[in-house]
Amino acid sequence: MANRQLHLNAFLMGVGHHESAWRHPATDPFGVADVRHFQRLAAIAERGTFDSVFLADGVQVMGDIRHSAAHVFEPITLLTALATVTSHIGLIATASTGFSEPYNLARWFSSLDHISGGRAGWNIVTSAGDRAAQNFNAAKASEHVDRYRRAAEFLEVTTGLWDSWDDDALVVDKNSGVFTDPGKVHEVNHRGLHFEVRGPLNSIRSPQGRPLLVQAGSSEDGKAFAARHAEAVFTAQQTFADGRSFYLDLKGRLARQGRSVDSLKVLPGLVPVLGSTEAEARKLAAELDDLIIPVRAVAQLTELIGVDLTGHPLDERLPSLPPVAAINGAKSRFELVRDLAEREKLTLRQLLGRLGGGRGHQVLAGTPEQVADHIEAWFAGGAADGFNVMPPLLPSGLEDFVDHVVPLLRKRGLFRTEYTGTTLRDHYGLPKPVNGFARAEPSVV
Amino acid sequence: MANRQLHLNAFLMGVGHHESAWRHPATDPFGVADVRHFQRLAAIAERGTFDSVFLADGVQVMGDIRHSAAHVFEPITLLTALATVTSHIGLIATASTGFSEPYNLARWFSSLDHISGGRAGWNIVTSAGDRAAQNFNAAKASEHVDRYRRAAEFLEVTTGLWDSWDDDALVVDKNSGVFTDPGKVHEVNHRGLHFEVRGPLNSIRSPQGRPLLVQAGSSEDGKAFAARHAEAVFTAQQTFADGRSFYLDLKGRLARQGRSVDSLKVLPGLVPVLGSTEAEARKLAAELDDLIIPVRAVAQLTELIGVDLTGHPLDERLPSLPPVAAINGAKSRFELVRDLAEREKLTLRQLLGRLGGGRGHQVLAGTPEQVADHIEAWFAGGAADGFNVMPPLLPSGLEDFVDHVVPLLRKRGLFRTEYTGTTLRDHYGLPKPVNGFARAEPSVV
Repeated sequence: MANRQLHLNAFLMGVGHHESAWRHPATDPFGVADVRHFQRLAAIAERGTFDSVFLADGVQVMGDIRHSAAHVFEPITLLTALATVTSHIGLIATASTGFSEPYNLARWFSSLDHISGGRAGWNIVTSAGDRAAQNFNAAKASEHVDRYRRAAEFLEVTTGLWDSWDDDALVVDKNSGVFTDPGKVHEVNHRGLHFEVRGPLNSIRSPQGRPLLVQAGSSEDGKAFAARHAEAVFTAQQTFADGRSFYLDLKGRLARQGRSVDSLKVLPGLVPVLGSTEAEARKLAAELDDLIIPVRAVAQLTELIGVDLTGHPLDERLPSLPPVAAINGAKSRFELVRDLAEREKLTLRQLLGRLGGGRGHQVLAGTPEQVADHIEAWFAGGAADGFNVMPPLLPSGLEDFVDHVVPLLRKRGLFRTEYTGTTLRDHYGLPKPVNGFARAEPSVV
Repeated sequence: MANRQLHLNAFLMGVGHHESAWRHPATDPFGVADVRHFQRLAAIAERGTFDSVFLADGVQVMGDIRHSAAHVFEPITLLTALATVTSHIGLIATASTGFSEPYNLARWFSSLDHISGGRAGWNIVTSAGDRAAQNFNAAKASEHVDRYRRAAEFLEVTTGLWDSWDDDALVVDKNSGVFTDPGKVHEVNHRGLHFEVRGPLNSIRSPQGRPLLVQAGSSEDGKAFAARHAEAVFTAQQTFADGRSFYLDLKGRLARQGRSVDSLKVLPGLVPVLGSTEAEARKLAAELDDLIIPVRAVAQLTELIGVDLTGHPLDERLPSLPPVAAINGAKSRFELVRDLAEREKLTLRQLLGRLGGGRGHQVLAGTPEQVADHIEAWFAGGAADGFNVMPPLLPSGLEDFVDHVVPLLRKRGLFRTEYTGTTLRDHYGLPKPVNGFARAEPSVV
């Protein structure tokens, strides 16, 4: 275990993850619409030798728009803009399998991987919620299990497309006029329940072969999907016990899929609220929580767990919630919120405060030492391979983490002092995937 | 007419538009996969104060892959990478209405417009050909007229989405906690033959409001669509007479749509093969034509006109071709090729030579003076508002044009010496579109 290294992703969201971030004096709320704001964040994260920057996404307006900072950029285009001002850091975009075509999505990630020299990652989501479906010709979201079935088939198609050009397909002989060996370019000829795709992709194989595959669902369907396909999992875990249990569960599933325990990294989200003293950190956390607007927070919670809590008295405990089987949204986030509220007997107002920092992810207010201790404890204790770092304020929270927490982690030998590779897979210590067609007979297009 | 100004777009394609470009000693064929190659081209075009760079696209592997330079990048991501290294030049991406969802496409162009500070343009294509359809769950392409019907509805949806946030929807008051005025954000609630889309878009209105709308089909359906919707038309015209006739036809249609003649720019493609003497230019043209590989050229012609010419004897004239009504591909390109072959009584080999430079676009080998004279004659004679410049070799052909032709056009007062605005619409002299919802009653989301 001496050489086991932490993995850290910088989860970038607007001007900070705390839902009141845009109201805090430390932020410029117009940063949400300014590509230079995000370029600065990527440069700070790269200075901190983070494995990647990560962007969430949804295909609908979210929550209470009156009180929420607006979203502006589509993640793949924004990451492309970040690729051109960085040289090493990975670039992970969330994209849904629910409402796009595999051929298109395969092209976007291949193109990002080419542009960035092998730094693309795809956080695969299935898009819960009727509001998303209603932007794509449907009145209601598909059932949870069907969304995951579509995701699995979608991934099968995109994987085939990413492999459809062999690594050595290009000949490029000016003299003979042969650019490509057609025997090394393969049709996919997928015929499934959701898709029929001939292929090949209209692009050569990208530097990483395929983007790094990331998954963030922690439901039973989500874990099964991750164990089969994912190379990193982002997860929300409130307690060490829950985190350890999730970690063991997921790692145990890998062996049953014939995969090594190192082939998938488990990365809980963490909102570090930093201060030079614990009191200063707690003061910042309280400032942020005081800026929470309950009506906005209730709307966000309603969307997060898929149960309408509008109008519920703020100072009463939650009503009894439906069984998880009846939830068609993010099942694991629903369970996390229900368990948190029950375990700590929280009123709705108290619950909103607990969720305001990170939408269910753990919030830790403390000194850089305390945050580093926490990270080390989870890492050494086998509850995490690293963290998805979610600064409450941006850029200040990311700068503080890079300037004060990262040096401690480096001093303890837990985290790289410089990049040792150039691709996102290099940072994660994962090999370039073998091309699925390399084992098959060559076919002529 | 004294102040009428030329518009020039740099049509970037791999290492040059001539189909043998990658075989010529002047090119580095690996440029096709190198984002820095394209960034250099964009910088050269911006030095030449071009209105825009333009990228074509297809959603399938094209032609004879053995002998053709591979395509690598998806246009919107590539243009995003060019946006970050330029400051003024417009960025026009081709994207098909045939195989994507309007909500997704509206987001990509909105995001590119935000990232570039208002420089995005969309070249709207409908994607002919069964090979494209076969990557998207269909055995065959839709009928020509149906593709245009879908395109019109698609554009109606994206326009609604681009307008769904008023220009002044943001409040951003830290004190009250109001970020957005919900009364200035509108659902689209589109219910049509192909799409049902609720909206609003999950992004604020972009700097240009909407991307500049470009269209390149010159069939009857294409011209009708352009007259209603397009702000620029790219077209292939072999002779001044044809170009003048097309120009008058299209401009005449604008009035019938209640649009001014200046609201749409007509831009024929032009392949300038430059030399410091005419003999030198002709020598370069001959070098390139000598590198044409007939089997590859026949495959490309087959794809271009939708008629299979494989196996036809190279030194015989074309077989009799089907009536245009039977063509489900690019109808206008079919007619152009048929007319060219008949008018000049060309054998197949001769026709391939004529098409090798620009796939049906006019090829002009000459000195910078001769090319400038040609451009001025079409412009002054009312056959063009400018040109879509298609250098046969890249970067050398673009550099020669910027260094030797652009100065002549500037000296003649035909072309800008510096940018006078910052958006693509500014360069075209077009206003920011009025938001369609601005005239309607506000609606609450």
